[in-house]
Amino acid sequence: MKTTLCVLYIFLLFSSFLCQTHAGNKQTQALNHLYRAKWSLNSAIDTSHFEPPQHVNNASILLQEGLKENDKIHKLPGQPYVRFDQYGGYVTVNESAGRAFYYYFVEADQTSNESLPLLLWLNGGPGCSSLAYGAMQELGPFRVNSDGKTLYRNDFSWNHAANVLFLESPAGVGFSYSNSSSDYINCGDESTAADNYVFLLNWLERFPEYKEREFYISGESYAGHYVPQLAHTILYYNKMANKTLINLKGILIGNAVINDETDTIGMYDYFGSHAIVSDEILDQIRIYCDFSPNTTKQSDKCLEANAEVGQNIVNIDIYNIYAPVCSKQILTSKPKPMSRAIDPCSEHYTYVYMNRQDVQEALHANVTKLDHDWEPCSDVINIWKDSPSTIIPLLREFMKDNLRVWIYSGDTDARVPVTSTKYSINSMSLPIKTPWHPWLYQGKVGGFAQVYEGDLTFATVLGAGHQVPSYKPKTALGLVTHFLTGKPLNGSRYRLS
Amino acid sequence: MKTTLCVLYIFLLFSSFLCQTHAGNKQTQALNHLYRAKWSLNSAIDTSHFEPPQHVNNASILLQEGLKENDKIHKLPGQPYVRFDQYGGYVTVNESAGRAFYYYFVEADQTSNESLPLLLWLNGGPGCSSLAYGAMQELGPFRVNSDGKTLYRNDFSWNHAANVLFLESPAGVGFSYSNSSSDYINCGDESTAADNYVFLLNWLERFPEYKEREFYISGESYAGHYVPQLAHTILYYNKMANKTLINLKGILIGNAVINDETDTIGMYDYFGSHAIVSDEILDQIRIYCDFSPNTTKQSDKCLEANAEVGQNIVNIDIYNIYAPVCSKQILTSKPKPMSRAIDPCSEHYTYVYMNRQDVQEALHANVTKLDHDWEPCSDVINIWKDSPSTIIPLLREFMKDNLRVWIYSGDTDARVPVTSTKYSINSMSLPIKTPWHPWLYQGKVGGFAQVYEGDLTFATVLGAGHQVPSYKPKTALGLVTHFLTGKPLNGSRYRLS
Repeated sequence: MKTTLCVLYIFLLFSSFLCQTHAGNKQTQALNHLYRAKWSLNSAIDTSHFEPPQHVNNASILLQEGLKENDKIHKLPGQPYVRFDQYGGYVTVNESAGRAFYYYFVEADQTSNESLPLLLWLNGGPGCSSLAYGAMQELGPFRVNSDGKTLYRNDFSWNHAANVLFLESPAGVGFSYSNSSSDYINCGDESTAADNYVFLLNWLERFPEYKEREFYISGESYAGHYVPQLAHTILYYNKMANKTLINLKGILIGNAVINDETDTIGMYDYFGSHAIVSDEILDQIRIYCDFSPNTTKQSDKCLEANAEVGQNIVNIDIYNIYAPVCSKQILTSKPKPMSRAIDPCSEHYTYVYMNRQDVQEALHANVTKLDHDWEPCSDVINIWKDSPSTIIPLLREFMKDNLRVWIYSGDTDARVPVTSTKYSINSMSLPIKTPWHPWLYQGKVGGFAQVYEGDLTFATVLGAGHQVPSYKPKTALGLVTHFLTGKPLNGSRYRLS
Repeated sequence: MKTTLCVLYIFLLFSSFLCQTHAGNKQTQALNHLYRAKWSLNSAIDTSHFEPPQHVNNASILLQEGLKENDKIHKLPGQPYVRFDQYGGYVTVNESAGRAFYYYFVEADQTSNESLPLLLWLNGGPGCSSLAYGAMQELGPFRVNSDGKTLYRNDFSWNHAANVLFLESPAGVGFSYSNSSSDYINCGDESTAADNYVFLLNWLERFPEYKEREFYISGESYAGHYVPQLAHTILYYNKMANKTLINLKGILIGNAVINDETDTIGMYDYFGSHAIVSDEILDQIRIYCDFSPNTTKQSDKCLEANAEVGQNIVNIDIYNIYAPVCSKQILTSKPKPMSRAIDPCSEHYTYVYMNRQDVQEALHANVTKLDHDWEPCSDVINIWKDSPSTIIPLLREFMKDNLRVWIYSGDTDARVPVTSTKYSINSMSLPIKTPWHPWLYQGKVGGFAQVYEGDLTFATVLGAGHQVPSYKPKTALGLVTHFLTGKPLNGSRYRLS
């Protein structure tokens, strides 16, 4: 069972296209890896609906006294001065297995952080690190310079709006680990949600001042599964305990994997309407491919069309079709001057920085001396056990429970594009409360938005790729600020009236 | 008849949407202005097919001896050193009316320019200046700094590939003028083609060393009309004379107005697939609007949907939906540092520079002291007499005549978008010679391309707006180099085989 999925499954649907996307971004590969498995014969992936785990109990909560102080990060190597506190360390999620999750926590960049909510950020993959993407390339307070050893400030860090908690999950991702290697081949949505929940309970014991704080969960890509599943678990245990164990108020997911069938059709339609594949190939896919759940075999005509698609996207970054790609992964002796756009090679700079011993010491990370490098997306996890074909039932549940549900989409991502999200939401047949309109932030169009009865908000971010806060940091901060404060995204038409 | 079109035509279809696009770019307004008129009752615009003018004769050619030397530009104010020669001046196109066209000519930036072709560039509008867009913001050797008085080099100027001639046409555009004010209300496609042709004949008399040179015509937007119409006129007179009066080899048009019906449907589809308008509004437009030629009345439901579209695009630049818009038209005391991206306010810097007396003197422009400012798009021309609903018959003629026909499209333009061009070409039902594939330039994907039997090439430029060489200067130079040398755009799939 240690063979990778690529070898394990004989019939690799879409392998021609999903294997060939640009290799610069590890996140690109992780999601493709999973889809390849899901659409294969005998994949053994459980795609039934997600159920909350049953084995979380009081024994899951360990004593956390004094641990917070040890986790305080005094200064990261090469870090500019900041006025907020940072913490990093491990929270044990399973004592007997020796399973521990690494977190990085940045308090709000405000003179007083007491009124600002607690926001958890999760990256997807599955298998990608929230430290790699969320913290160091998207919404965190620092980004790594091209020298791989110094940091610069992200002026639009989300800790201007919240106390932000980045979690590397599940075990095997980033610095998170297990002493039982079997854990690495037993990963799946259900175990990840259970571990994330246990992590949270313990983390709140370690930081008890945040226990009553308004709590929100956010994330992108495959975190479209993680975020709702963790929210569902929290709601379930709150109900079981008949009290608010965790004060969850809402979820925010971006370019999120929501519903396999519509996600996939939306991706091909996006390729077509964005002139990446021809109408002929798109027609062939629409006629000869079957993306309904449980389909595991496709016709030759479908596979042939997919091979064509693969040829067309091999040299572009389908996570932001208009962005430059990293042509050479090399460090510079001095930091390159910062530009408005994120450097396409920043994943490499982050990789180098995170693997420095002084950085790991400052972060209180890698305390067990892992036998592998810290990686943006895990090379350790190769099997994924369960992944429901849709998370729409969970979204419906949240809307009933009055949880704030916001879904956003950077509109230049072709992998989990705006068309996919639109189709997935359309499949819910929700009545429209506020029709499609531009939304403005600081006088500029941030994107377009629609609000549905029940209260689900769908917002695009104009010109942003898959990692929205990387490409449109200012707009993304505007979006999350509106989300956290519950203020609707206003558009020009409303300003005019 | 001096009233502007906006007032002249009572029933202003799409006025709600076409009047409200972002005001920063004058080119935005020019094309909308025309369409508004074309789709109006009693517009009096002749939309019949273009016929070559009959009144060009030997008397149209005037003596040009000695005039070339007078036109030589010694140095433009604030200009960096260059090694190529520049010329600027007037060519009379109608002596009795006192109608004269201003041209700016940059010889090739090569130790020897003798082997490189002559390339004419035309901007559209109708009414926009090739000096304003083509020369100073797109493919010319210089761009204007944010101080409005100094210039910097465009490293990817098209004079690396050709001797480039920029023409301000028709009379009333830029520095071009007529002493008969009636000329300004008698503009149209046919008179423009005739005048452009007379200009060319005379210009070649003034620069006889280019008479035998391979000649190409290029342009964007409404030059999708000008370029084929001028080419058609050249071919017509070559045939009439039974000899090669002008050595025309091919045409290149970008984000070009080709075929009104498909252009318009393609624009709305682009808005829809790019998440700018909702599916509901797009459906309403597709059901209730009629874009076939000669339609002059639309249903209320169509107008209502258009009003919605207008609300959604009011604050974005639909000529490059992901580009920032110019928020304040101000000069800086010192030039802003250059960045890879074109400054969204560069139109304003160009306007200021072109209206300086020392610049006009250096250019040998405005010799008659016009009673209006030099404008990027004409405020003088408000009536347009004839504009065929399609130029496809001309494209078919060129293909029969073995003229090289290349059509390109910056794929982030929503005004004359890639969908429009695709639909327009599809309507020709040409057999495909080389199917849709990525094309590479210097190891990077420049865009996608398809070649049709007959030899028509359609190529996209990835991530470029309406003014392709502004946004993707390097790729655009690659494209024009391939066009001029007749080398097919090669893709990764071909490199691999």
